[in-house]
Parts: sequence; structure tokens; C-alpha cells
Amino acid sequence: MVAAHLDTVFPEGTDVTVRREGTKLYAPGIGDDTRSLAVLLAFIRALDAASIRTRNDILFVGDVGEEGLGDLRGVRHLFTKGRYRDQIEAFITVDSPQVDNIVVGGVGSKRYSVRFNGPGGHSFKAFGIVNPIYAMAQAIVELGRIEVPETPRTTFCASIVGGGTSVNAIPEEAWIDIDLRSESAEQLARLDARCRAIVAAAVEQENTARSTSEGAITVDIRTLGDRPAGNTPMDSDIVQFATAALQAHGFAPRHEASSTDANIPMSLGIPAIKIGSGGTGGRAHSLAEWIDVEKTASVSGMTASLTAILAVAGFVGA
Amino acid sequence: MVAAHLDTVFPEGTDVTVRREGTKLYAPGIGDDTRSLAVLLAFIRALDAASIRTRNDILFVGDVGEEGLGDLRGVRHLFTKGRYRDQIEAFITVDSPQVDNIVVGGVGSKRYSVRFNGPGGHSFKAFGIVNPIYAMAQAIVELGRIEVPETPRTTFCASIVGGGTSVNAIPEEAWIDIDLRSESAEQLARLDARCRAIVAAAVEQENTARSTSEGAITVDIRTLGDRPAGNTPMDSDIVQFATAALQAHGFAPRHEASSTDANIPMSLGIPAIKIGSGGTGGRAHSLAEWIDVEKTASVSGMTASLTAILAVAGFVGA
Repeated sequence: MVAAHLDTVFPEGTDVTVRREGTKLYAPGIGDDTRSLAVLLAFIRALDAASIRTRNDILFVGDVGEEGLGDLRGVRHLFTKGRYRDQIEAFITVDSPQVDNIVVGGVGSKRYSVRFNGPGGHSFKAFGIVNPIYAMAQAIVELGRIEVPETPRTTFCASIVGGGTSVNAIPEEAWIDIDLRSESAEQLARLDARCRAIVAAAVEQENTARSTSEGAITVDIRTLGDRPAGNTPMDSDIVQFATAALQAHGFAPRHEASSTDANIPMSLGIPAIKIGSGGTGGRAHSLAEWIDVEKTASVSGMTASLTAILAVAGFVGA
Repeated sequence: MVAAHLDTVFPEGTDVTVRREGTKLYAPGIGDDTRSLAVLLAFIRALDAASIRTRNDILFVGDVGEEGLGDLRGVRHLFTKGRYRDQIEAFITVDSPQVDNIVVGGVGSKRYSVRFNGPGGHSFKAFGIVNPIYAMAQAIVELGRIEVPETPRTTFCASIVGGGTSVNAIPEEAWIDIDLRSESAEQLARLDARCRAIVAAAVEQENTARSTSEGAITVDIRTLGDRPAGNTPMDSDIVQFATAALQAHGFAPRHEASSTDANIPMSLGIPAIKIGSGGTGGRAHSLAEWIDVEKTASVSGMTASLTAILAVAGFVGA
């Protein structure tokens, strides 16, 4: 399966009119990932024109939900509910122009909103009862103390916090949004479990430290995002063949970890990588996003990427 | 000085039309503190009609800023900048109908908004840099651990919290609004100092625990409210005379601590109390606020309160 994603980070209604200056094209989403979609169509036409035959079928896909809260739902659907879900032996996502790196690691993430609730009351008259802000603060302090490995890179972040309505009231609610990430599924699961244990312990501690006569602190964890971690071994065919194909065309690709559509197959143990669509570009995720379609660099990158795809699919002949 | 306050807790534009049902009057602010203002005028007329002479002059005042964010600014002005500021030997505020208590303690409060700022960054790529939410959480946890005396009653509250804009970003700012109160000026000052020390230590701890390569956590404390604590000794003339006057009229007043206009003179060591305007009332600070002006109870309370005022001012004769 070869995919590029149809969605962008921009909200509906964003002006996506393309402005051309010489060989440079400007538009939100032009490089991430519109160019790749056009390149996949070019690949299909080229394969047809040259009557290329491959050992395995190649299924070209335009998918949704790659960006942000999309949570990789398009590719997730393809691998869990789509009609070809049991026939996909390898997955290549073509995402953004750069051909100088191959993504072989999928940074997984878990994001949730933790809401602490309590009885609330007057700051002076009800002093001594449980306060959801103290429970939350205790959880955040403990979160900040977690030790995570540098390799595989694993991170946590207390990102957004809120709660309370009046300076002279013990609040009824406080909440924190948390972002957990790791290149390793195992480390991410461990971090997630530790984080949930910390939250539970903080609630218990607050319910012990202060009075629950008016009610106890309760907690609710709502998932905001869940992207599985995974990776494709460096010595796997898909990485070796793609690397060789790019090198044969003069590129020296680095091997990196990132969060892409490839996370889903990686997490399922299916060989998967991300490669580029060729040419150059920049300012992805900004309104000033651009690509350069200058022919030499553009075709050179496309040729290298198509070669990588054919190497993985098994070139038989023309 | 005898005062009643002109302001209410209600926002400008609130419908304050009085509705009468028998002897009950309904209107926002009718008891707290409109009735007292009318009662002061009745006192003045009664004193004139009976040609009452007192040892000390009585200055009747209608003041502003008693409620909420007003921070007692009216009475504060009278005692610090007003033309009579050096001539006030005793202060009685007539506030709300109830004649069954005399406020002899002034609950002081300090309220501030503590803003923690940091460099901010990407939750995964910039992991390891200081995060203002961790500094804030550390301060809140330590605040929650402060031990305060039950007597004089002293309280603290983490009331409102906020910060951060995106789940995948280390925030640039986090803030907490804090409410500190005490019946004792000394305890309030101690609590305030402890709280500020905790904030400073939490910032330092975060700047030590994580990287400041992109910038360090800084903090800014903005005062939201500052009401001094104070009290008038139980054996002072003002408390003894007022208590005796109310008892002579059949009331059995309790002695309480609260936050009233009397806080200001109390904090300056000037004898001060709060008494009631007579009659009954309820639902203060709500749109359903009411008083009952039924003559017997109303005049009985008014007479008792005027007697208290005359006892304090020194009744000479008629």
C-alpha cells in the first residue's frame, strides 16, 4: 500500500488558492501533503505508460485524519476495517517533499484531559474540605518527576490547565491536558500507566489530607488523542530496499522517528516507512507553505521514490 | 464615626425596584445595606428632635467600596486621607438588620494572582525545558501543606487556575489566584510571607530541575485584594458599652469576626464594631434579598442600636 494524506492542519474555509512565482508554488498544505497526492497520480500514469509489472499488487491510497486530532483515523480504518486489511504486506506513506530522510520509527502519543471534581465551597467558611486544584497540582508535580529514557525518546508535558470561577471559592473543578509521547510502544505504555497511577494516588492523597464531609474528589480521564508507537527494523527489507533505491539516485537518506500514517502499520508489526515526494519545500503547517517544482530536482526525487516503491513491491519487468 | 455602606454586590443596571408584601420589602441590597442608610437618617432626626447632647461629636457617613473588589476603599479613604482622619476615636458600622451579633473581629484577606512565565516550546522536540505549570503545581502543593491555627481562624485557598494553549506545547504561562484570610493581622502577615516564599522556592526548584537553555521561569504577583485584619478587644469600652446597650433592650448579642468596614479602623488600633439596623431580613447578596419592617421588631432593634451609639459617644443629656 502506498498512501498520501488528503487532510491538512488548516481549518475549513482556509484560502488554499495556489500562487505561483517561477517554479515555486505557495498554498497552505501544498507540500504537506498535496504534492504527494499529485505525485502518486504521476506514478500510476508512469507505471501504466511503461507497462511495469510487480511481484505484489500496489494499492494507491489517499487517506484522511493524518493531522492533529485526526489521530490517524484514515489509515487506522484501512488496517482494521478496510476491505484490504488482511492483504497489506508493506506500507509506504509519501508525505512532504523531502527525500533526504526515511521515517522508520513511529513516535506514539497519548493525550488526555484529566478532570478533578469536588464539592466546592466558600474559601473561608468551608476551609478544610478537599480542593480539586490541590489534587491536580499533586498529580502535576509527580508527573514532572517521572524519569524517562533519552533513547527511545520518551516525553511528557503538562500542557493546558484550568479550573475555578471565583477567588473566594474552593473550586468544584480543575483540569489538566497531558501529552505523552515515545518512540517505543513499551515505554509509552509504561508512561501512560505511571501517569494514570499518579492521578489516582493524587486523588486519594487529597481525600485523605482534607475533609470529605461535603463530598470527595473524583476524577475523570477523557482521551484526546491516541497514536500508537512502533518501528520498522533497520535490517528489514522495506528499509534496506528503500534506502538502496534512494542512494542509487544520489540521495543519502537519514533514518528518523516521527509521527506519520506509518505509525499504524508499525504498531501492528507490518513493515512501514515514510518517504518524500521530491523537490523542495518549506513552512509546512503555516499559511506561507511552499514547494519548488523545478523540474530537475523534482523529477530526480520522484524517480528515486518510485524506485523505492518498486523495489519494495518487487519489480518484475516492463 | 457611624457609617453604613452605599454600595451593593450587584452590578450596575440591576433592577432594584422595591416590591412590598405586607411589612416585607424585597429588593437587591435592601438589607445589605440600604436599610441601615435609612436608619442612620432616622437616628439623626431622632437626635435632633430630642435635642440629644453627647460628649463626643458623631459623624454620620455613607461610604462606598465595602463589597467585593471595593476592598473597603471608602472607609480606607476616611481613615487615611479624609479630612476627619485624625479625629475619629471610635467607629461603628451599621450593616444589615441583625441585632443579635456584634462584629468585634475583622477577618483580613489578601488575594493575588500569581503568574508564572517561561519560554514555551514543542512538547516533544523541546522536552526537558522548564514548564511554568510544574512551578505553579509545586507552589500549590506547598500551599496546601501550610498549617494554620484554628484560632484565630486562618485559611488559604487555591481558587482559580489557568494556562497553556495547545496540548502539544509546553506553555508559556500558567497562573493561580489565591485567597488568604485570617482573623489575626499577625497570622495573615505570616501566611502571606509563607505563600510568597513558597512561590519563590517553587520557581527556583523548577529552574533547577529542568533546563533554562531557552529561558528561565519568572513570576509576577499581582494583588487582587487586600483587606487588613484587626480586632477590637472584648474588654474595650466600645464592645462593653454596645453589648450592655443591646442587652438592656432584650438582645443577647454574640461576638463575631467578619469582614466589614470596621476592618480598617481595627487594623489601625481604633476601637471599632459592627452592629445591626434592626428588624429582620434574609437572602443578602441574592436577587431575592428582603427585610421585614414590622414596627415592633424594627423599632426595638433601632432603639437598641441607637442606644449603643449613644453609649459609645457619651450621652450627656437631652
